[in-house]
Amino acid sequence: MSTAVAETSTTTGLREGAFGNARALACRECSHQVALGPHYACPECFGPLEVAYDFPAVTREEIAAGPRNIWRYKALLPVPTDIEQSPNTEPGFTRLLKADNLGRTLGIDNLWVKDDSTNPTNSFKDRVVACALSAARELGATVFACPSTGNLANAVAAAGARAGIKTVVFIPSNLEQPKQVNSAVYTENLVAVDGNYDDVNRLASEIAGEEEGWAFVNVNVRPFYAEGSKTLGFEIAEQLGWRLPDQIVIPVASGSQLTKVDKAFQELIELGLVEDKPYKVYGAQATGCSPVSVAFKDGVDAIRPVRPDTIAKSLAIGNPADGIYVLDICRRTGGAVEDITDDEVREGILLLARTEGIFTETAGGTTVGVLKKLVETGQLDPALETVVINTGMGLKTLDAVSGRVGPAATIAPSYDAFAATGI
Amino acid sequence: MSTAVAETSTTTGLREGAFGNARALACRECSHQVALGPHYACPECFGPLEVAYDFPAVTREEIAAGPRNIWRYKALLPVPTDIEQSPNTEPGFTRLLKADNLGRTLGIDNLWVKDDSTNPTNSFKDRVVACALSAARELGATVFACPSTGNLANAVAAAGARAGIKTVVFIPSNLEQPKQVNSAVYTENLVAVDGNYDDVNRLASEIAGEEEGWAFVNVNVRPFYAEGSKTLGFEIAEQLGWRLPDQIVIPVASGSQLTKVDKAFQELIELGLVEDKPYKVYGAQATGCSPVSVAFKDGVDAIRPVRPDTIAKSLAIGNPADGIYVLDICRRTGGAVEDITDDEVREGILLLARTEGIFTETAGGTTVGVLKKLVETGQLDPALETVVINTGMGLKTLDAVSGRVGPAATIAPSYDAFAATGI
Repeated sequence: MSTAVAETSTTTGLREGAFGNARALACRECSHQVALGPHYACPECFGPLEVAYDFPAVTREEIAAGPRNIWRYKALLPVPTDIEQSPNTEPGFTRLLKADNLGRTLGIDNLWVKDDSTNPTNSFKDRVVACALSAARELGATVFACPSTGNLANAVAAAGARAGIKTVVFIPSNLEQPKQVNSAVYTENLVAVDGNYDDVNRLASEIAGEEEGWAFVNVNVRPFYAEGSKTLGFEIAEQLGWRLPDQIVIPVASGSQLTKVDKAFQELIELGLVEDKPYKVYGAQATGCSPVSVAFKDGVDAIRPVRPDTIAKSLAIGNPADGIYVLDICRRTGGAVEDITDDEVREGILLLARTEGIFTETAGGTTVGVLKKLVETGQLDPALETVVINTGMGLKTLDAVSGRVGPAATIAPSYDAFAATGI
Repeated sequence: MSTAVAETSTTTGLREGAFGNARALACRECSHQVALGPHYACPECFGPLEVAYDFPAVTREEIAAGPRNIWRYKALLPVPTDIEQSPNTEPGFTRLLKADNLGRTLGIDNLWVKDDSTNPTNSFKDRVVACALSAARELGATVFACPSTGNLANAVAAAGARAGIKTVVFIPSNLEQPKQVNSAVYTENLVAVDGNYDDVNRLASEIAGEEEGWAFVNVNVRPFYAEGSKTLGFEIAEQLGWRLPDQIVIPVASGSQLTKVDKAFQELIELGLVEDKPYKVYGAQATGCSPVSVAFKDGVDAIRPVRPDTIAKSLAIGNPADGIYVLDICRRTGGAVEDITDDEVREGILLLARTEGIFTETAGGTTVGVLKKLVETGQLDPALETVVINTGMGLKTLDAVSGRVGPAATIAPSYDAFAATGI
């Protein structure tokens, strides 16, 4: 499978600096290193490969002088120094909003929302896809692809269109029609597969193994793709004035995002860009798909896969690849992993909308709801500076709240009718 | 009606610098000036009032040192110097994307898309609402309100929630349920009115006249509200490297946005922030609501109101308040006003999505479609630098394209089934 991208695109065929300051791919389990290329599993132990770097000195000033998107951190990503010149969606540098209303409601003194719903296709996936696109380009891929039911499909189809690369997106054929439109608008090559998401995923891996020149963002270029999530951590630190928060709450699907935000904080410390200080990382899941939360609470190291049953579809990964690393990080930093019911997810969506004017999708409702539960159960210190990440946008999961909200009154078009409402 | 905001909030009750460098409200028709306050019609001739300023010297460096949102231009807006300290949605500074794919398709050498779909509630309305919110606050308003069917309702409800001010949004009761949810998620006070949009609008004016302390963003604080659209012009110039484009294409609903972008360009020239140079302004309408385009083509000064019949609902204003000023500007600059059919609007949406990865709503489809028509009819010079504005997001008008796009194939979950598709 790791040879899916054309054979001419092995490390020796790469142009100088194709992956910036990245040095190799290193196994997260056994530390074995392989050359940069379309590989994602360790040839020694089958552990996940992750990008390793030789970082030069990087200054805050150099970063601040960069573009107002994720490429300001290009020195810390596996991308070439001229990455801004290649057509991409220019994601990132989204709002970090002081959330005093939400903080007051939850009893938290100093709360921020990192709002990734204002990315080009309205989720954090634009960040990771931009890094995957760069890798695909440098590896000489001719097709940019993914299996997905939602945010990832939108991000891949949009980025592929802008890059002018052939893009193929695989979805389960029973996906709701509006979500199909959401990706089909960007690409001619939307392929509906009769089966569930696992079937679609397996087909993607099969195609990656059979076809040459295909870059599946979350399969054979996954190590590069995943690095994109670090930019969430970089931005939070920079937007706080080059400082790490005391506590951060992050949704957990595969767990990749949480591990990469932690990696970002560690890299900033190593590079001297922020002061070294303790911070606690918290993971958020929906109870209907909470294998990591269950393992955390049980105090065990192994994640027991589950069959997802929750409205938080974008978090519904029953066998999360990075779950064990999430456990490590949350335990190491003194954080926690917590989960809430679907009703609490819906309440979380409304809470964020009505306090801060941010309409989040179910994943964000999960994160805000878990934040609330963490305070109520004494797991999170309300006196410490806290950041909560909103990863996506409510218009994509409108059904979650459509039964809950609506007009307060329906009136005739006259002042008297309005006055009678008491509003 | 102009006394709808509490009487204590007249100019004499204002705090020093409540409206920044704004000096007065000046009539666009007769130049009569009135004090800054909740007024929108000239007491002499009933012409529209517009904010007039005493600008200090403003440098590019001061602006560049400001926040990454519209408040970087606060010296040029009717807002106090501490505006960033008041909770708001922090809109603006959205992407200006080089659109080489779209340019190639249309035969335009040097094309940019200003993408306002990545604003907090996914349309340019967040800009104007942020300025209206500041005016409401400074005038001592206790209720923040609007009549709207879509983008404006979202922006007002979200900004009001974040500001912690009571917010009331009026919609026609027959509005599709998803669009109701879209605003109801932010506010408890969504009021459905049995009637069409004109009925809702009339009711809003009636309430503004009867109630004290209400700020209706597009009624009694409209002069302040409208100034927010200037930030689109400021950003385009700054993002081009402090340079005006040669040609710009802007959608026309009331016409306010187009006139304000022109005002922004003129102010930048007056302040010496950009070089004075000729530029052409083009207006875009849908044929089903094209009173300004009709007047332009007929060579007349008067706008004949129409009953809108188009899928471009956010442009469907049959009697556009600023239509005559749009005619003035497009004629003065050598531009034009053009219109396209609903089918061409749908094609415009797909064209932008498939070339640049931007999913726009019907208003953006109109603008892109008109751009295409302007080139084809020789009204726009394809050799000159051109900017097209995308004002909103496709998820809000999904129906417009849902019959047009979908899966290219539906297959069994096997490689052989995929290979047989020929994709």
